[in-house]
Amino acid sequence: MEKRVGAQSVKFNDPPYLVSSASIVGKMEDEGKLRGKYDVVLEDDTWGEKSWEHAERKMFEQTVRLTLNKCGLKTGDVDCLLGGDLLNQLVSANYAARELQTPFIGMYGACSVMAESLLVASMLVDGGFVSTAACVAGSHFSTAERQFRMPLELGNQVQPTAQRTVTGVGCAILCAQPLTNGLSLYQNIRAVGGTLGRVLDYGITDVSNMGAAMAPAAADTIATHLTDWGRTPSDYDLIVTGDLGRFGVQMLHELLAERGVDLTGRHLDCGMTVFAPEQDVQCGASGCGCSAIVLSAHLLGKLEAGDYRRILFVATGALMSPATNMQGDTIPCIAHGVILERSAT
Amino acid sequence: MEKRVGAQSVKFNDPPYLVSSASIVGKMEDEGKLRGKYDVVLEDDTWGEKSWEHAERKMFEQTVRLTLNKCGLKTGDVDCLLGGDLLNQLVSANYAARELQTPFIGMYGACSVMAESLLVASMLVDGGFVSTAACVAGSHFSTAERQFRMPLELGNQVQPTAQRTVTGVGCAILCAQPLTNGLSLYQNIRAVGGTLGRVLDYGITDVSNMGAAMAPAAADTIATHLTDWGRTPSDYDLIVTGDLGRFGVQMLHELLAERGVDLTGRHLDCGMTVFAPEQDVQCGASGCGCSAIVLSAHLLGKLEAGDYRRILFVATGALMSPATNMQGDTIPCIAHGVILERSAT
Repeated sequence: MEKRVGAQSVKFNDPPYLVSSASIVGKMEDEGKLRGKYDVVLEDDTWGEKSWEHAERKMFEQTVRLTLNKCGLKTGDVDCLLGGDLLNQLVSANYAARELQTPFIGMYGACSVMAESLLVASMLVDGGFVSTAACVAGSHFSTAERQFRMPLELGNQVQPTAQRTVTGVGCAILCAQPLTNGLSLYQNIRAVGGTLGRVLDYGITDVSNMGAAMAPAAADTIATHLTDWGRTPSDYDLIVTGDLGRFGVQMLHELLAERGVDLTGRHLDCGMTVFAPEQDVQCGASGCGCSAIVLSAHLLGKLEAGDYRRILFVATGALMSPATNMQGDTIPCIAHGVILERSAT
Repeated sequence: MEKRVGAQSVKFNDPPYLVSSASIVGKMEDEGKLRGKYDVVLEDDTWGEKSWEHAERKMFEQTVRLTLNKCGLKTGDVDCLLGGDLLNQLVSANYAARELQTPFIGMYGACSVMAESLLVASMLVDGGFVSTAACVAGSHFSTAERQFRMPLELGNQVQPTAQRTVTGVGCAILCAQPLTNGLSLYQNIRAVGGTLGRVLDYGITDVSNMGAAMAPAAADTIATHLTDWGRTPSDYDLIVTGDLGRFGVQMLHELLAERGVDLTGRHLDCGMTVFAPEQDVQCGASGCGCSAIVLSAHLLGKLEAGDYRRILFVATGALMSPATNMQGDTIPCIAHGVILERSAT
């Protein structure tokens, strides 16, 4: 069976099973819309470590361990760990991979990394190169702010277009075969295909307006996906975007309308799903962890329960850099998509 | 046929063809041991751009275009671009991918990225998900120094253990089938398998001693590879490491000797292959571009000519970060390996 579909998409012959997921989040994330759904909630965002960066890498490592524990697997069962974070040189992922001692493929796609990892891991599993893969992505509000914007100690005011970086890590385990140990969290969820994204740039330079920067990349990947697969939004119970936020979502719908695609009633943006309106986070949530925790703590359970039968998970990344921003460059963005289906039982 | 080999290795059923390569380097690189072998040599390291960062991304984009041109392909023929660089947020790769408009998978493994990209791309091609993949890695001395160490304007003295980051980008094209246009640079080179690396850390904190930090990761990947495949170094005409430099090479040989592996007479370190001794670069060359240009400009030609029949290409990455270094962390490292063979004709 042909595994290439259209210009940018792939279809799996023997779709990998998504058998487990877990999430660890900050206190404020658990006070939002998905309260009570996360596995571990930090009391404070240093988690007993001497720096936020150390807390972030601990979250990263512990989320992978927890996801494995939940389905009765050990780190030694993982053939490959794929993932990344927002910090320079992917330090959270690298230091976690050092502790986990699994083979590791470091990926950078900013906030698109959960979909990027799931898509590449699915190809490696379906291709027969890897039996069990762990996909992980995370971010931390306090490390991201000081790296990308301003030291928190300055107490800067937040712009109305800004989104708040999620303090959270989400992980999912893909397997070539269903688990036989009876401990699989999900019995019926499979990754059946996806679409690789291209880098797009609509000329946005405002690092506090990520949603507007990312919307064109999300629109391009969704429209390309539908064309490649010969589908319409009605073929999906839900099309999920990573962290476009309020303005980004509006732009996405306008851009897709221009291409004859109507997402009405079938779209969920993870950036609008983490924090509640009364939490005063302007346009919503963002960060690698945003789509990763919403997938891990919320969407997979809904799929397994049969509330959704098929979703398209499109995580979106603003590939911004403080260095190039200061050199006057605009913000390029990318989005990758993965189809997750509940198989009929 | 089983595609998993041992603990960390893979073997391809239908090994991808490596059909073209190209390199663009700085002036000083062309004054070294491989003088005259590179495709394009910059007159000065800004290449007419307003910043070194802009020059680096131009090199990145132009190397991909050149590699495609050399074998009669266009950017539209590329199903997936894989690669990365050393700059925060992979800006060189991202901005190049924006211009090239090919689907893009951003990878971060510091100087291991050429092997990481080749290995993942080979799996995607062998798995049938992608027909043509471009793998690219690059670095720039002047952008790396100011990001990782000190502003060049300070005129700091260099430490004796230091290596000089290569200003150079190398690219290679992998195809599922041989080219039928008669323009293939290489007729006989195939990627037949490889080994995924783990993150190791021997406690080095000195950012001017990358070779010592990376040697344990290289030793681990090489030893694991040989065990997984049931081979000895004599099964290879050459085992290539990325950029260990003089001290790193010495450490590698000692670490492998402890594991009963003797590389004598079969080892080439790209870090010792770029600059000539009289160029006064202390322990040698480093950077993502180092192994990428030596592979593209030198090793592939030797393979095609039949000087080598089988090589193991192991690129090594020091996953160091100025931020975590200042927080007292040691430098974790990783190495991935790919087997390149000249098929009998």
